[in-house]
Amino acid sequence: MVNSVRVAGVGMTPFGKSPERTAREMFADAADEAFEDADVPREVVDEVFYGNFMGTFAERQGHQGPMAAEAAGVIAPSTRVESACASAATAIRSGVNQIRGGQSDVVLIGGAERMTNLSTPEGTEALAAAADALWEVRSGITFPGAYSLMANRYFEEFGGTREDLAHIAVKNHEHAVDNDLAQFQMSIDVEDVLEATMVCSPFGLFDCSPMSDGASAAVLVSDEFAEEHDLDAPVEITGSGQHSDHFALADRASIPETPAAERAAKMAYEDAGIGPEDVDFLEVHDCFTIAEVLALEALGFYEPGEAITAARDGETWKDGKLPVNLSGGLKAKGHPVGATGGAQLSELTKLLRGDHVNSDAVEDAEVALAHNAGGTVASCVVHVLEVDE
Amino acid sequence: MVNSVRVAGVGMTPFGKSPERTAREMFADAADEAFEDADVPREVVDEVFYGNFMGTFAERQGHQGPMAAEAAGVIAPSTRVESACASAATAIRSGVNQIRGGQSDVVLIGGAERMTNLSTPEGTEALAAAADALWEVRSGITFPGAYSLMANRYFEEFGGTREDLAHIAVKNHEHAVDNDLAQFQMSIDVEDVLEATMVCSPFGLFDCSPMSDGASAAVLVSDEFAEEHDLDAPVEITGSGQHSDHFALADRASIPETPAAERAAKMAYEDAGIGPEDVDFLEVHDCFTIAEVLALEALGFYEPGEAITAARDGETWKDGKLPVNLSGGLKAKGHPVGATGGAQLSELTKLLRGDHVNSDAVEDAEVALAHNAGGTVASCVVHVLEVDE
Repeated sequence: MVNSVRVAGVGMTPFGKSPERTAREMFADAADEAFEDADVPREVVDEVFYGNFMGTFAERQGHQGPMAAEAAGVIAPSTRVESACASAATAIRSGVNQIRGGQSDVVLIGGAERMTNLSTPEGTEALAAAADALWEVRSGITFPGAYSLMANRYFEEFGGTREDLAHIAVKNHEHAVDNDLAQFQMSIDVEDVLEATMVCSPFGLFDCSPMSDGASAAVLVSDEFAEEHDLDAPVEITGSGQHSDHFALADRASIPETPAAERAAKMAYEDAGIGPEDVDFLEVHDCFTIAEVLALEALGFYEPGEAITAARDGETWKDGKLPVNLSGGLKAKGHPVGATGGAQLSELTKLLRGDHVNSDAVEDAEVALAHNAGGTVASCVVHVLEVDE
Repeated sequence: MVNSVRVAGVGMTPFGKSPERTAREMFADAADEAFEDADVPREVVDEVFYGNFMGTFAERQGHQGPMAAEAAGVIAPSTRVESACASAATAIRSGVNQIRGGQSDVVLIGGAERMTNLSTPEGTEALAAAADALWEVRSGITFPGAYSLMANRYFEEFGGTREDLAHIAVKNHEHAVDNDLAQFQMSIDVEDVLEATMVCSPFGLFDCSPMSDGASAAVLVSDEFAEEHDLDAPVEITGSGQHSDHFALADRASIPETPAAERAAKMAYEDAGIGPEDVDFLEVHDCFTIAEVLALEALGFYEPGEAITAARDGETWKDGKLPVNLSGGLKAKGHPVGATGGAQLSELTKLLRGDHVNSDAVEDAEVALAHNAGGTVASCVVHVLEVDE
């Protein structure tokens, strides 16, 4: 008999530029909020899993497990997990497994990233450590470069245009307009995207998620603990999946497919006993506009080659049939990489509970999904959340 | 009902200087050996946990989960865990928890570290990332400095001399003399230790573990899987514990005590249903000679202030009542930090199975223990191993 896992509380800092704040300070804020939201004292925490990607570059800081635990006011077994931009979702899955396995009743998970204290070349170098340092980075690839290969190959195989991608950026910005936690709370239009500074063809500036500082946290508890302590925790994590792929793009059978995401989704769907048809809305890892397309196809919402027009056709908008990135996504909410998976959990939990600024878009929704990817999707973590009716 | 965890196979590279070998190449070798030892095909691996500490410094490489899995010929969910020098033991505990929780039947764990491609100042900077970057490293502390504070405070509170510590180095070197995998297979005497170049008082060169390159791996399986596949896997992991402490030395109540190790040991003992009196021999994290003393006290083998004379009195030698670091320990076997916890598991498994060069010293032994510490023991992982009679 597997224990079920409830999200007792969530917290996150506003995402944006705060180069003078340390990762631990930001995580302390997110954890404070999560404990308050959960109404759980920090003394009962059994374990801490903390996601961080580039702290050795930004703060020369490794060994962040005990650092993060102490910042959160917790003395408990604490581990840093690192899966590049999927670090925090990996922390969530570690917590889910501990609770399900009966090893823990209360787990603090989350992550933080401090990025904007680095110069652009320093930040670009740090982010590149998520790709294959020996066979990709050494040859000059950066992340806009890697994802542009994926986008151009997608266009080659299936068709699609820069305009199609632009609609994704426009949508995600629009979703973030009223989200106080988002880095960019401003509308843009397709022309803004197409006319922006070119970063790496086909990506202009608005096709790329920004450098961001921020932290996220959540208190996960066993069903039993929630009942015993009469917690108000209506959101359950019913599905958890993670998988990997060949590390370098050159070793993959197909560049615009992300089998790590397919396999992680299959695990999560089977785990939850649902399929994509049951999902009401989702957050996906749109580090670049094309990434949202690849995610929607890998997760089974669209056939290969068909998600490229989803935003243009209005389907993934707030008022569409499958709202995607109601938080604003990585694009507009911001992407402090080690915090992102936890921020997805925070936003989805609030959306499901009805206390998110965009909750009215998903009033009767019961099932949500989070997709958090590492590197060029060499790793991916998928979670399914369900809310008590 | 908790699934029990068996060590189906172990592997490690020789530890030493191989600056031209990448971490992934070394891990591939260790994993090959572990799969062969286990007689388990790599296709059945459900999950990979990989420990690495300083790969972003040494190879500018993060996101090492999928990198390590691919190097080992495995496509499975894969996560890098990082707890400084306790990274690989954290990987072991992650694997143990997955199997116990019923999420996995077969887990590949291990770790690697490439260190000697860095210059001494570069390596020292990288290692310092295991301490508090904001409140310790910034003030100039390095690891020999931090542990020398612990040693000097120990001397102040309990007494003890450089000679006492020297006996620990002499013992561990002696234990490594016939260990082909050890970095230093040479005897030294007390005079060698006392007359060696001073590193940071009270530590001379021989009080310090070296910079090393190397990797370790193990295939862990559920009891059921071992039975179904008729595996020869007599060693069981019966106890697993992990804990943390205040990150910086200055925030701790007592500098020469390591409560993270005490708490991790308590968890592991309770988990295994044993006490220190049941342990026949052990590997402890002797990154500096004083660390072996602090470990033996925290683990409950000696009262505070009493382990300092254990090596001098012959008690922790190969032919003593409690053999400690039969592999040579970090001191003589070497300390590629992300691999060390896995190397302890490899050495202990062979010692228990009777196929280690020092197995004759522990012929009828049934219970062994591993103690792997991160930083100044801000984190610690303890495992108890038992062998079928």
